[in-house]
Amino acid sequence: MAKSKGRLTLPSERNFLAQTQELLDRWGADAIRDSDGTKLEEAVKDLDASIYTTYFVARNHNDFIKDHMEECQQLYLMSPFHTASQESLAIDFMQGYYREQVVPDYHHDPKEWWEVINRTTGQVVPSSQWQVDQERDLVLVEGAEPFHEYTVSFLVYKIWDPTQMYNHITNNWGDSVAHDIPFDVRQPHSNRFMSDYLRRWCQENPKTDVVRFTTFFYHFTLVFNDKAKEKFVDWFGYGASVSPAAILAFQEAKGYRLRPEDFVDQGYYNTAFRVPSKAYLDYVDFQSHFVAQEAKKLVDIVHEAGKEAMMFLGDNWIGTEPYGPYFKDIGLDAVVGSVGGGATLRMIADIPHVKYTEGRFLPYFFPDTFYEGNDPTIEANENWLTARRAIMRKPVDRIGYGGYLSLAYKFPKFVSYIEEVADEFRDIYAIVKDTKPYVGLKVGILNAWGALRTWQTHMVAHALHYKQIYSYLGILEALSGAAVEVIFLSFDQVIADGVPEDVDVLINAGDAGTAFSGGQHWARPELLSAIRRFVYQGGGLVGVGEPSAYLQNGRFFQLAEILGVDKELGFSLSTDKYFTQAQGSHFITADLEAGQDPDFGESMHNLYALSEETEILEYSNGEVHMAAHDYGQGRGVYLAGLPYSIDNTRLLMRALYYAAHKEADFNKWHSSNPAVEVHAYPAKGKYAVVNNTAEPQVTTVYDGQGISQEVSLAASEIQWEEI
Amino acid sequence: MAKSKGRLTLPSERNFLAQTQELLDRWGADAIRDSDGTKLEEAVKDLDASIYTTYFVARNHNDFIKDHMEECQQLYLMSPFHTASQESLAIDFMQGYYREQVVPDYHHDPKEWWEVINRTTGQVVPSSQWQVDQERDLVLVEGAEPFHEYTVSFLVYKIWDPTQMYNHITNNWGDSVAHDIPFDVRQPHSNRFMSDYLRRWCQENPKTDVVRFTTFFYHFTLVFNDKAKEKFVDWFGYGASVSPAAILAFQEAKGYRLRPEDFVDQGYYNTAFRVPSKAYLDYVDFQSHFVAQEAKKLVDIVHEAGKEAMMFLGDNWIGTEPYGPYFKDIGLDAVVGSVGGGATLRMIADIPHVKYTEGRFLPYFFPDTFYEGNDPTIEANENWLTARRAIMRKPVDRIGYGGYLSLAYKFPKFVSYIEEVADEFRDIYAIVKDTKPYVGLKVGILNAWGALRTWQTHMVAHALHYKQIYSYLGILEALSGAAVEVIFLSFDQVIADGVPEDVDVLINAGDAGTAFSGGQHWARPELLSAIRRFVYQGGGLVGVGEPSAYLQNGRFFQLAEILGVDKELGFSLSTDKYFTQAQGSHFITADLEAGQDPDFGESMHNLYALSEETEILEYSNGEVHMAAHDYGQGRGVYLAGLPYSIDNTRLLMRALYYAAHKEADFNKWHSSNPAVEVHAYPAKGKYAVVNNTAEPQVTTVYDGQGISQEVSLAASEIQWEEI
Repeated sequence: MAKSKGRLTLPSERNFLAQTQELLDRWGADAIRDSDGTKLEEAVKDLDASIYTTYFVARNHNDFIKDHMEECQQLYLMSPFHTASQESLAIDFMQGYYREQVVPDYHHDPKEWWEVINRTTGQVVPSSQWQVDQERDLVLVEGAEPFHEYTVSFLVYKIWDPTQMYNHITNNWGDSVAHDIPFDVRQPHSNRFMSDYLRRWCQENPKTDVVRFTTFFYHFTLVFNDKAKEKFVDWFGYGASVSPAAILAFQEAKGYRLRPEDFVDQGYYNTAFRVPSKAYLDYVDFQSHFVAQEAKKLVDIVHEAGKEAMMFLGDNWIGTEPYGPYFKDIGLDAVVGSVGGGATLRMIADIPHVKYTEGRFLPYFFPDTFYEGNDPTIEANENWLTARRAIMRKPVDRIGYGGYLSLAYKFPKFVSYIEEVADEFRDIYAIVKDTKPYVGLKVGILNAWGALRTWQTHMVAHALHYKQIYSYLGILEALSGAAVEVIFLSFDQVIADGVPEDVDVLINAGDAGTAFSGGQHWARPELLSAIRRFVYQGGGLVGVGEPSAYLQNGRFFQLAEILGVDKELGFSLSTDKYFTQAQGSHFITADLEAGQDPDFGESMHNLYALSEETEILEYSNGEVHMAAHDYGQGRGVYLAGLPYSIDNTRLLMRALYYAAHKEADFNKWHSSNPAVEVHAYPAKGKYAVVNNTAEPQVTTVYDGQGISQEVSLAASEIQWEEI
Repeated sequence: MAKSKGRLTLPSERNFLAQTQELLDRWGADAIRDSDGTKLEEAVKDLDASIYTTYFVARNHNDFIKDHMEECQQLYLMSPFHTASQESLAIDFMQGYYREQVVPDYHHDPKEWWEVINRTTGQVVPSSQWQVDQERDLVLVEGAEPFHEYTVSFLVYKIWDPTQMYNHITNNWGDSVAHDIPFDVRQPHSNRFMSDYLRRWCQENPKTDVVRFTTFFYHFTLVFNDKAKEKFVDWFGYGASVSPAAILAFQEAKGYRLRPEDFVDQGYYNTAFRVPSKAYLDYVDFQSHFVAQEAKKLVDIVHEAGKEAMMFLGDNWIGTEPYGPYFKDIGLDAVVGSVGGGATLRMIADIPHVKYTEGRFLPYFFPDTFYEGNDPTIEANENWLTARRAIMRKPVDRIGYGGYLSLAYKFPKFVSYIEEVADEFRDIYAIVKDTKPYVGLKVGILNAWGALRTWQTHMVAHALHYKQIYSYLGILEALSGAAVEVIFLSFDQVIADGVPEDVDVLINAGDAGTAFSGGQHWARPELLSAIRRFVYQGGGLVGVGEPSAYLQNGRFFQLAEILGVDKELGFSLSTDKYFTQAQGSHFITADLEAGQDPDFGESMHNLYALSEETEILEYSNGEVHMAAHDYGQGRGVYLAGLPYSIDNTRLLMRALYYAAHKEADFNKWHSSNPAVEVHAYPAKGKYAVVNNTAEPQVTTVYDGQGISQEVSLAASEIQWEEI
């Protein structure tokens, strides 16, 4: 059989031509890319491969911006809380910030653009009561209320791009590399410059086939502290796109003026965990529209030059969210993003309105993994197995790697392993691309962001672990490779249109008050009645953590009557809780081994069953952690948390089938062993039996009619069968 | 030495004269009491002892009430939540209630006295939209909003006293004993009857020296379910004193009319964990005033008959709260209550305005403890050691026992042990009564109830264990026997008068939103500034659990700037948390053994330090559980929970001394071994070294100048020394 080729991008570097050619052949690569620190030499660009070249729009041009420093990008920051111990108060508002990254904006009048807020009452202090001491960077407040706390919300200029700063500091570039100053393409000079420069660049880079935008205009919020360490990071944040010009243009477009507090948000800066305010949603819409318009200009220039335009999903990506309403207007050819597992793969693979998507796989070819004595194959295998689950459902069109190719080259076992992965990817792709796999259920994930944040819920910074999120992220990770169709629904959408008719089960998961649980949305009667109607008429609801949590009207979980459980906050301790007996066996827990405690991650405490009609599935430490409950023709299921694991994926699938009243379909295209999954492609007449582990597995496989056979699989093996 | 005698009350029973006399002598008892199920025979009443006789005011007189059933006591109940699946809805409001305990009140017009509430919107349904079907006990609602939830708040008559019901059912009294029907002395016939009957009774019981009221008029809220099991219990509840007459009288007195919802409170029924509404506080005040007035009439009758009036602290005690403003008006001679440990002992011993107090000690002489093979001495010793700590600070004036004396008599070891206890109690009493023990600190416990609930915070039902309370009750238990003065302060009081000048440390402890943490009180700027001022000027604040928790203005803990910690609810995940290193040694943790994990009970999750200025004292599982922080001249200390133990008592004491900046005083009247405590009585020139355990202990004892000596103590021993 001829070796397959294509759909793989290789990083390269200087003085590595022969080995680049060798790996190009062995891995079947058809594209070569540079990186932030590496440039391609001309000979490499002449190899038989497309050339991707990283392109920075709004930084890396200090020669330009130094003459237009008033066009630097901006940010609203909040000072620390200061307690007034007397009536006058001096607030060192820059305390804790990194002056090499941000400097106060005294260009725009602080009296107009800043706010001093009494954080004890929530009230704005009249600007007549404070002065700015520009020499000492202090705000001096008079007439303060003693023992109230005050903050200053102030505008800064950003004078160092945070990603370059991070690389600069981490790699000790010192004085040899200038600090990239980010500029704002909403400003006139910057806007002209971005197009002019790109046109020239395209001419000067004839061998570039694909311009890899990294990315467009505004970097997600990333602020450093006075020790030059990360202080605040929000991968989804729009705060770093603000400016007086933007605020005035917003006012023009939306008819009202935003306040500093609309950005500062009590110091939470509208992170994705906050239930977004109308003002913030309006601002996201406004900036996304602007970014799409301006990005389109650049994409058009790239196309005129006969090249393709690819966007990196991250870094300066404010306003380019791929599931937002304006993304399609940009006219991109491709998106590339980093793959941390199944959910992040789907985040890339599901992106609409592009010709192709590319996933950058782990590990990076960096010394933290590629050092003597370590086996990078292990991380590569783990990354591949989790991503492969998702690829079986919806593939990215290309895979790629990053870092120093010379480093990877020193690990022959790794080079061989990636050769296998590349072949396997192309084999899978050939079958599963452009065909709809068998789907057992349709699931709607309900939160305040809806489709805008498809596959992006419960994340702080992309793919980083946080104690407070992993118990929810497991849901996305489990679903990313499961035989279910997944959509993301906002509360507003459900109120406007009801739950879509073809949805089998809704999932609401998150900590109380967050955008993912829903917070104040659960005070909206229209939302409650829409979901109750859906379940009552036969739908399913799976709640994880603190679903529908909003304390009012005698309930904490507003959908407690569906879920059959509520959380004890102390107010109902006087009511006896008699229902403490878990059911011995149940459809949902059927694959747990006897005596096996489910892993609820951080779990949730003080849950209790409302009545004897609640089916308690797990009870320990005086609490319910898993339950099911009938509601009209439908059902609710409660889970205290769902970190990702093979067992929890199975638990979730059973919970979904049970909630949907589709237990009878559970054994279609099914594997008895949860470590193995079955993906069927009826239009192609094929199905795959996939071992998701690095150990051999034996299982009983059920086909679409539920007919079974025993199957043995080698470690990580896929077996393809005809239907 | 002559055997000491007195200060002890013995239960007795029929056919037990000789043994009663024997125990009277051995235990030095000077009073004999009957019980709910036992009557004293005449010969016993002639022994050389005071005779206590149990007296029921508002039940146990069915002959009377059967002719005045409209004077039965009443209660507002809430139906279960009912979901409207269409516009008409029938609510079986009695569902889940026990019809032998409560029956709907159709005597008063439901349209006037009941409410149907839409629990999805919180709005009252106009009474024109519903009807009552009295035949079937249904409320029929028309024009309901589909998929909204509805409840009915309805009035019932109580036709069975809940304490008698409990005894009746538990002891299978069957048809032989009538159901005691409670009547309402606010009604005319009942009011006349209560005085007339008591007058007659006093004449008929000449040998009774002390009338033991059990208690006065209204039983705390105790409602049974349709299986005759407890459904709702609130030892502090006032709900069972309501009636249309009371509501009309309230309107007269307070100028506004209470709604059913003021009692039903979304189904929480104003438990002590709810931050009390103004209406509820007004109602408590109103009923307490009424109860005091009426109880005084009875006490006067008792006094006129030459007897003493003693109140049992519990059962029908609504309105008689001993720390309330009207208690002194009742004119009682004594209060007797059940002792579960140190905190409940102090709850009794600290009661003002009576001549004496009596604690009923455990175990009861009941078969659940006094059975063959069991050693009741163990429980008696545990109960005595915890109570003794508190007695060393503030003694009750008498101790007593309950149950069947004949049962205890069968356990000679137990009889001997109580002989020792009785002697030890009298020895202690002789020294510590009427003298002020050495006090190292004054502590104010801050909550919504203040002094009204002195030693009664975080309790659901008296001395019962709940998972959600033990981590806070440990604070009271630790303090009950510690060398600190304890007062209870309400938020209103602090706002009105500031923190009292002589208070060293405030404690705020509880779950977010409860009356004990404070809930919406923490949105009051006057409260925040008063406490900040207090600490800033040198006071201490110890927060346990979720102190000052109220999400607003960028903080969950409104006093986070004092405590140095806040709780991560998800909104500030984007802010880096660098402060995770616990201090190796600290004054507060100095008595923990190396590597010993403190016991925070249920603990608290997702706490983080605000800055490097926070002294982290314990950090595990990605969370701070104990911390200290300077604030002006004062300090804050945070603890995630404090269940009662010897080690936690020491931890709390160190936290208090540290918060108060009084570390230098810590070694005054101090024991190095936490199992031993030192109590000094300077005015008596004595101090006691007390072994609080059932094992021998060795310790270094420090006197008032900090001069030390080694002391060895036998199990449970007290050594008295001269100063």
